[in-house]
Order: sequence, then structure tokens, then C-alpha cells
Amino acid sequence: MRIAFLGPRGTFTEAALHEFQRRGVIDANAEAVAAANPREAVHWVREQQVDLACVAIENSVDGPVTPTFDALAEADGVQIYAEVDLAIEFALMSKGIGLEQAKKISTHPVAYQQIRQYLDAHAPGIEFVAASSNAAAARAVAEGEVDLAAAPAHAAQVYGLSVVADQVADVPDARTRFVLVGRRGKPAAATGSDRSSVMFTLHNKPGALVSALGEFAMRGVDLTRIESRPTRRGLGTYRFHVDILGHINDQPVSEALRALYLASETLTFLGSWPAASIEAIPQLYSPSALQASRDWLDAMKEGK
Amino acid sequence: MRIAFLGPRGTFTEAALHEFQRRGVIDANAEAVAAANPREAVHWVREQQVDLACVAIENSVDGPVTPTFDALAEADGVQIYAEVDLAIEFALMSKGIGLEQAKKISTHPVAYQQIRQYLDAHAPGIEFVAASSNAAAARAVAEGEVDLAAAPAHAAQVYGLSVVADQVADVPDARTRFVLVGRRGKPAAATGSDRSSVMFTLHNKPGALVSALGEFAMRGVDLTRIESRPTRRGLGTYRFHVDILGHINDQPVSEALRALYLASETLTFLGSWPAASIEAIPQLYSPSALQASRDWLDAMKEGK
Amino acid sequence: MRIAFLGPRGTFTEAALHEFQRRGVIDANAEAVAAANPREAVHWVREQQVDLACVAIENSVDGPVTPTFDALAEADGVQIYAEVDLAIEFALMSKGIGLEQAKKISTHPVAYQQIRQYLDAHAPGIEFVAASSNAAAARAVAEGEVDLAAAPAHAAQVYGLSVVADQVADVPDARTRFVLVGRRGKPAAATGSDRSSVMFTLHNKPGALVSALGEFAMRGVDLTRIESRPTRRGLGTYRFHVDILGHINDQPVSEALRALYLASETLTFLGSWPAASIEAIPQLYSPSALQASRDWLDAMKEGK
Amino acid sequence: MRIAFLGPRGTFTEAALHEFQRRGVIDANAEAVAAANPREAVHWVREQQVDLACVAIENSVDGPVTPTFDALAEADGVQIYAEVDLAIEFALMSKGIGLEQAKKISTHPVAYQQIRQYLDAHAPGIEFVAASSNAAAARAVAEGEVDLAAAPAHAAQVYGLSVVADQVADVPDARTRFVLVGRRGKPAAATGSDRSSVMFTLHNKPGALVSALGEFAMRGVDLTRIESRPTRRGLGTYRFHVDILGHINDQPVSEALRALYLASETLTFLGSWPAASIEAIPQLYSPSALQASRDWLDAMKEGK
Repeated sequence: MRIAFLGPRGTFTEAALHEFQRRGVIDANAEAVAAANPREAVHWVREQQVDLACVAIENSVDGPVTPTFDALAEADGVQIYAEVDLAIEFALMSKGIGLEQAKKISTHPVAYQQIRQYLDAHAPGIEFVAASSNAAAARAVAEGEVDLAAAPAHAAQVYGLSVVADQVADVPDARTRFVLVGRRGKPAAATGSDRSSVMFTLHNKPGALVSALGEFAMRGVDLTRIESRPTRRGLGTYRFHVDILGHINDQPVSEALRALYLASETLTFLGSWPAASIEAIPQLYSPSALQASRDWLDAMKEGK
Repeated sequence: MRIAFLGPRGTFTEAALHEFQRRGVIDANAEAVAAANPREAVHWVREQQVDLACVAIENSVDGPVTPTFDALAEADGVQIYAEVDLAIEFALMSKGIGLEQAKKISTHPVAYQQIRQYLDAHAPGIEFVAASSNAAAARAVAEGEVDLAAAPAHAAQVYGLSVVADQVADVPDARTRFVLVGRRGKPAAATGSDRSSVMFTLHNKPGALVSALGEFAMRGVDLTRIESRPTRRGLGTYRFHVDILGHINDQPVSEALRALYLASETLTFLGSWPAASIEAIPQLYSPSALQASRDWLDAMKEGK
Repeated sequence: MRIAFLGPRGTFTEAALHEFQRRGVIDANAEAVAAANPREAVHWVREQQVDLACVAIENSVDGPVTPTFDALAEADGVQIYAEVDLAIEFALMSKGIGLEQAKKISTHPVAYQQIRQYLDAHAPGIEFVAASSNAAAARAVAEGEVDLAAAPAHAAQVYGLSVVADQVADVPDARTRFVLVGRRGKPAAATGSDRSSVMFTLHNKPGALVSALGEFAMRGVDLTRIESRPTRRGLGTYRFHVDILGHINDQPVSEALRALYLASETLTFLGSWPAASIEAIPQLYSPSALQASRDWLDAMKEGK
Repeated sequence: MRIAFLGPRGTFTEAALHEFQRRGVIDANAEAVAAANPREAVHWVREQQVDLACVAIENSVDGPVTPTFDALAEADGVQIYAEVDLAIEFALMSKGIGLEQAKKISTHPVAYQQIRQYLDAHAPGIEFVAASSNAAAARAVAEGEVDLAAAPAHAAQVYGLSVVADQVADVPDARTRFVLVGRRGKPAAATGSDRSSVMFTLHNKPGALVSALGEFAMRGVDLTRIESRPTRRGLGTYRFHVDILGHINDQPVSEALRALYLASETLTFLGSWPAASIEAIPQLYSPSALQASRDWLDAMKEGK
């Protein structure tokens, strides 16, 4: 079994992959294969070069990881099966020199935005060199190209560096959600605390989006993300990404998805999977109320 | 087999009953039993004193026949099975004297409103005596109580009267829809041109009615009547009567009714039956699109 | 000043007219003019033969008084200005004989439906003779045509009859709402507890009704009545009657009416007037919240 | 006058700033001040260190520029006043060596994703070095740190480089929209082809988002972007960004914004400004219909 992840070694994504292994979701002996970006990882899944890809989809500070969703949009025939939530804590690491001596710091540009206040306070004037991943920045420190890297603490172990400062993010308690992407297959069984994701395009009619979202709202299905993305077919045409609480086998979700299928131009189901963090899922109707409604309908159809 | 109708003999409702017999909907030998009003007729059905009741439900000039719907609301456990549409034409009839000599005219108050312009023009100043049905007015002419009756032309035959003037209604082409009411049972098979009717009460929440009606609108199910009626439980509480195009076995109707069941406080299904007049039924989705949506949902649930 | 009412003397409508006088809404010396039905009364207003018409519009047992609303629909250019609520209590009255001796009872057919259980229990088998109004039935007793009348107790005084039984309605505590109709003019000032009424027809589009009602729901304006009525232009075309809580000068009502004007084919405003019975009017937004929203909008437009 | 832009010299943002000058939107002598990222540029506006900031907000390939919107969300009290659309064409540039000899290429990571197919075909195996902006990559070529940069063609002039290949983007015809951000003030006059932008948070109620978006849909106001962003107050709380077609002074936009103000927890108005590219703006109601609705409402209020 082969699992793609955003490399090189030492990234948060690799840590997520290990967490999936620790929990027994994927085999402890699975081979981890570093990809350059989420698109490559998802592409490998579709091309059957790997069995699964571990990719970030949402960050509590920066929101949805757009490149991952774009990759899922491009790679027709893939699906999400599982998720984990990890606390994201940046450490500053060097080959030994302290924060005061450092002249150049490298990290991924997104990470750089999250530690700027810290740097302004503790290392004013330090030069920033952009890296393609946080782990790549740690590797660049090891290779002597820059003095400091902002990366997950365990990247220091991977590349033999010393942690100069820990937990340097400007917004504390940031978390990132990672998912396992595989080829299309039967979703995991519903657990009562699940998440589903779909992408769709709509016919260009006034009110089409509100009407589509209404399919969820009227059935008490909660949305946890909505995003319009360009379709690349021209200005003013959009693809919508929506994450919902619930499983495709839950009656309200099932009905809402079917109604959305009818109302949309295209609809891609990205999977139903157990939610990592247990959020209270508000439900408009109890399971027994829903069962009662089915019973009533059947009785009326049969004249009982 | 016994069928109740609004009596006495000679009413439009009796004509409707004969039309049902002519079409083979009810047996030609069924016994017709005259009731004093729609409530009595429907009550007899519920009490198993008759098998069916033939009652008027809608008039193209005066709209829904409220007493019929109130009777259906009271008589839990009854259901509509069939309908016919009849042209309603009033004739003026007497024992022989002409319009000019007549001093008193009798008819049902509702019918009187529909011929007032005619009377103003042709018999100004004639005295009106209210009757409990048009046929009862014809009978009153035969019994010498009044000079003229406005009633269906065939009431003249029933009571041995002469038609003095025909087609005297102020609004021409009026039609009335009559239905057959029986005890709860399996609806007739869907024909593709059906009508259904429901009554419901809602929890007292802002927007509850719009939300309930939205269950139909969002599924492309057309309403042909809506009416709020007092529940008699107090001011400001209402029972809603809604007629729709479609059959409970049609997927959009079925789903809308189930959603309405979930959203409403009480819901009474009054039946699905073939529509007498073939109206074009606009459908938001074709049967093949609906089937495609079911297939898609099944495929996603199975991971195909 | 001349005020039309449903005659003859002794009707509930005449009692309502006196109540309007008692409260000072109309002059104590105004001349009361008996009309044969609500349509005639409203027609006289439009034709300037009277200044106002006092007509029933809603009964807590039987719901809206459809002939009144149809009369308002026909008589373009009239408007409602005030209302009173009266308890409706039927008394049985005769020229002296008791309930046991009576052979014929007369009343309006609608009233007859409301006392049938009483008659079944206390005067089984009594013959019913329909009258055009309850007071007309009392007059018929005085003239010796029938033995008993079911009418307002004060009709006994008017026609010199004895009350044989009082409060004989099957459903106790029935109330009827009466309104004063005049020619189009500026509505009475908003009191914070007002009622408004409109009639409209819609373009024949799926979901048009739900969308129209949504204009009220989304602004927190409560509907207290909705009714579809035939337009008489052909089957399947409807005119909708809607009563709402609030005044045309209230911001949410004002905006909803304007939006309804845009969305409807025709829209007739039937007036805003003080509500007789003080019902709690649920409001989605407080007056201060509404003012704050206006202030915000103005500030944004001016860049403040 | 001082205008901040995403530096260093040679970025697309600088080209957009020059386009604003060419069109006379900003003075030709205004001083351009390079910022490190959109947040810094917008922050300077708020702190009155510059008068305006020129920032990218949307790309036809990658969609909304999230950092810009996040910067606007943080910097309360700023507003958008104008926009331009620029074609985005990447050129490859060097100090003289050809594509075949180049070993390292630098550009912004987002740009790198847009030229990967080209590089795979024409320079397979070339090493990628991330830069904080495309112009920074060009400068790095000039300083001898890398061999090639992917950047706007005019960056070659700025840094004295040769263009090795032009128009190398994988998706042709990409365009980016840039805006001018200033401190809160009165919006530019409506032109009939305007754009507006708002951000809001909602009370946590089922259906709140659909209801909020419905305020636009029901008034025929088209949305061109919708995005949910984390509020950083905790999981499951969102800030919504919505772009619409129309101006705050247009009646439907004005009413929708006011209704949104009432329905939302917080609402930030980001401005109304002339749209650069003239898109057909579908309107549910014509200006004359809207005027007619205002006239009708006024007439009803005055009883005319």
C-alpha cells in the first residue's frame, strides 16, 4: 500500500499520515510517497500510482485549503474517506545559532503570514526566503542555505536541527484538518457524526444558488463551508464547493443531494466520512420523526 | 350500494351523480339518497350509512365550496376518489305563468347572487324567497308557495314545471366540480393527470406557512387552491386547505407530502384522484430526470 | 352622513353599526340604510349613494365572509377604515309559543348550520325555512309566516317577539368582525396594533405564490388569512386575498407591499386600520433595530 | 498622494497601478510605495501612511485573492473605490541564457502552479525556488541567485533581463482584477454597471445563510462571489464574503443590504464602485417598474 503526502519529510501532512496510522485507519507499514503539492498527490490516486493521498483541506485560521479542493475538482473519480484534526504549532529551528544571530528565515509563504507578529517582536528586520513547504525550509537550513526555518517541531528531528523557539504562531490553537483521498468507492458506514462534501455548477438562472442551498436548509442539513470558484470556462461562471454535516445515507442528506442533483448542471460527490472533531449536529427532525413521516406516507399510499 | 347527494331530486349534485353513473365510475343501479347538506352526506359516509357521497367542491365563479371542505375536515377518515366537471346553467321555471306575471322567485341564496343582473333587467322588483337548494325552490313552485324558481333545467322535469327562460346566469360558462367521497382506502392508480388535496395545521412560527408551501414550490408541484380556515380553537389559529396537481405516488408529490408531514402540526390527506378536466400540468423535472436522480443517489451510496 | 348595512333592522350588522356609533367612530346621527347584501352595500359606497358601508368580514367559526371580499374585489376604489368585533349569540324567538309547539323555524342558512345540534336536541323534526338574513327571519315570525326565528336577541325587540331560548349556538364564544368601508383615502394613522388587507393576482410562474408570500415572511409580517378565489377569467387563474398584521406605514409592511407590487400582476390595497381585538403581534425586528438599519444604510451611502 | 502596491517594482500590481494612472483615476504624479503583501498595503491605508492601496482581488483562474479579503476584513474602516482588469501573461526571463541551459527557476508559488505544464514540456527537471512575488523572482535573476524567473514581461525591463519565452501560462486568457482601497467615504456615483462587496457574520440559526442570501435573490441582485471564511473565534463560526452586481444607491441593492443588516450579526460594507469589465447585469425589474412601485406605495399611503 502506497500513500502520497505533501513532502518532503517533516511536513504537517506527514504528521497527519502518521496519525492515521496510529489510529489504525491505514496500515502501519504503508509506504509514504512525497508529492510536491496536493494536486500531484490527488493525481497519483486517480492514476493508480498510489492507493491514497493524505492532504490538508481546512485550517482554522486560513480556512479551506483551496489547492486541495481544486485538485479534487480536477481529478474526477476520487473521494474522501477519513479525516484527522491536528494542532498546528510552528517552531523556529536552526543549526545552532540563536534568534538574534539569524539573518535569513525561510518557510512557506502562508506560514510566514502566521508568524510575522512574532518575528516583528523577536527578530525585527530578518530577511524572508520563501519555501515550497515548511519542511523544505527546514531542509534548506540543514543544507546551509538559510539560518532559520519555521516548521513543525518534528522537522527539527528529521533534519537534525535545534528548536530555537516553539509555538510562535500569532494566533494560538490553530488546527488543520487532513483527509485521506482514494478512488471512488462505497462510503464508510454512517456514524451519526459524519461530514460530506459536494461540488456543483448551476444553470445560470436568478436565485439558482439560494434555491440550491435551500435544499439543505429546508431539510435541516447544516453547511460548514461554501465557496464559489471560477470554472475557468469564462468570467461569471462558478463552481460551488459545499461541506455539510451528515452522511449520504442519512435521510435528509440523501434527499437534499438528490434534489441538488435535479437542480444542478453538474454535481460531484466527494464522499461521506466520520468527522474527526465531534461537533453537535443540530437536526431539524429526530430519526423517529423522520421514520414516522415515512410510515405516514406509506400508509396513505396504501389507504391504511 | 348507496350514494348520498345534496337533495332533493333535481339538484346539480344529482346530475353529477348521474354523470358518474354514465361514465361507469359508480354502478347504474346504485341507490341515490338525498342529504340536506354536504356535511350530512359526508357524515353518512363516515358512519357507514352510505358507501359514497357525491358533493360539490369548487365552482368556477364562486370558488371552493367551503361547507364541503369543512365537512371533510370534520369527518376524519374519508377520502376523495373521483371527480366530474359540470356546466352550471340556471333556468327559470314556473307552473305556467310568464316572467312578467311572477311576483315571488325562490332559489338558493348563492344562485340568487348569480342571476341578479338578469332579474334586474327582466323582472325588476320581483320578491326573493331563499331556499335550501335550487331543487327545493323548484319543489316550492310545484307546491304553490312561490311563482318562479331558478334551478337546473332538469328540475323542471322532476317537478312538472315549464321552463320560462334558460341560461340566465350573469357569468356564462360557469362550471362546478363534484367529487365522490368514500372511506379511507388506497387511492386510484396515478394517470398522469391527477389532483390531490390536503389539510394541515402548522406550529405557530414566523414563516411557517411560506416554508410549508415551499415544500411544493421547490419540487415543482403546482397548487390550485389555498385557503385558511379558522380551527375553532380560538382566534389566530388556522387550518390550511391546499389542492395540488399530481398524485401521491408521483415522486415530487410524495416527497413534498412527506416534508409537509414533518413540518406540520397535523396533516390530513384527502386523496389523489384523476382530474376531470385535463389541464396542462407544468413539471419542473421530467420522469427520466427524476429517475436519473434516483440512479445517481444509489450509485453514490454504493460507490459505483 | 349615510351608512349602508345588511338589513333589515335587527341584524348583527346593524348592531355593529351601533357599536361604531357608540365608540364615536361614526356620528350618532348618521342615517342607517338597509342593503340586501354586502355587494349592494359596497356598491352604494362606490357610487357615492352612501358615505360608508358596515359589513361583516370574518367569523371565528366560519372564517372569512367571502361575499364581502368578493364585493370589495369588484368595487375598485374602496377601502377599509375601521373594525369592531362582536360576540355572536343566537336567540330563538317567537310570537309567544314555546319550542315544543313550533313547527317551522327560519334563519339564514349559515346561521342554521350553527344551531343544528341544538335543534336536534331540543326541537327534533322542526322544519327549516331559509331566510336572506337572520333579521328577515325574525320579521317573518312577526308576519306569521313561520313560528320561530334564530336571530340576534335584539331582533326580538325590533319585531316585538319573545325570546324562547338564548345562546343556542353549537360552538360558544363565536365572534364576528365587522368593518367600515369607504371610498379610497388616506389610511388612519398607525396605532401599533393595525391590520391591513390586499388582493393580488400573479403571473403564472412556478413558485409565484410562495415567492409572493415570502415577501411578508422574510420581513416578519404575519398573515392572518389567505384565500385563493377564482378570477372568473377561466379555470386555473386565481386572485389571492391576504390579511396581515401591521400598517402600510410600518416599514416592514411598506417594503413587503412594494415588493409584492413588483412581483404581482395586479395588486389592490384594501386599507390599513386599527385592529379591534388586541392580539400580540410578533415582530421579527424591533422598531429600534429597524431604525438602526436605516441609519446604517444612510451612513454607508454617505460614507460616514 | 501616496499609493501602496505589492512590490517590488515590476509586479502585475504595479502595472495595475499604472493603468489606474493612465485612465486618470489616480494622479500621474502619485508616489508608488511598495508593500510586502496585501495586508501591509491595506494596513497602511488604515493607518493613514498612504492614501490608497492597489491590490489584486480576483483572478479568472484562481478565483478570489483570499489574503486581500482577509486584509480588508481585518482593517475596519476601509473601502473599495475603483477597479481595473488586466490580462495576466507570464514571460520567462533570464540574464541571457536559454531555457535549455537554465537549472533554477523562481516565481511566486501561485504563478508556478500556472506554468507547470509548460515547464514539464519545455524545461523538464528544472528546479523551483519559491519567491514572495513574481517581480522578486526577476530581481533574484538579476542578482544571480537563480537562472530564470516567471514574471510579467515588463519586469524584464525593470531588472534589465531578456525575455526567453512569452505567454507561457497553461490556461490562456487569464485576467486579474485589481482594486483601489481607501479609507471609508462616500461611494462613487452609480454608473449602471457597478459592483459592491460586503462581509457578514450570522447568528447561529438553521437556514440563516440561505435566508441571508435570499435577501439578494428575491430582489434580483446577482451574486458574483460567495465564500465562507473562518472567524478565528473558533471552529464552526464563519464570516461570509459576498460580491454583488449593483450599487448601494440602486433600490434593490439598498433594500437587500438593509435587510441583510437586520438579519446579520455583523455587516461590513466594502464599497460600491464602477465595474471594469462590462457584464450584462440581469435585472429582475426595470428602473421604471421600480419607480412605479414607489409611486404606488406613496399613493396608497396618501390615499390617492
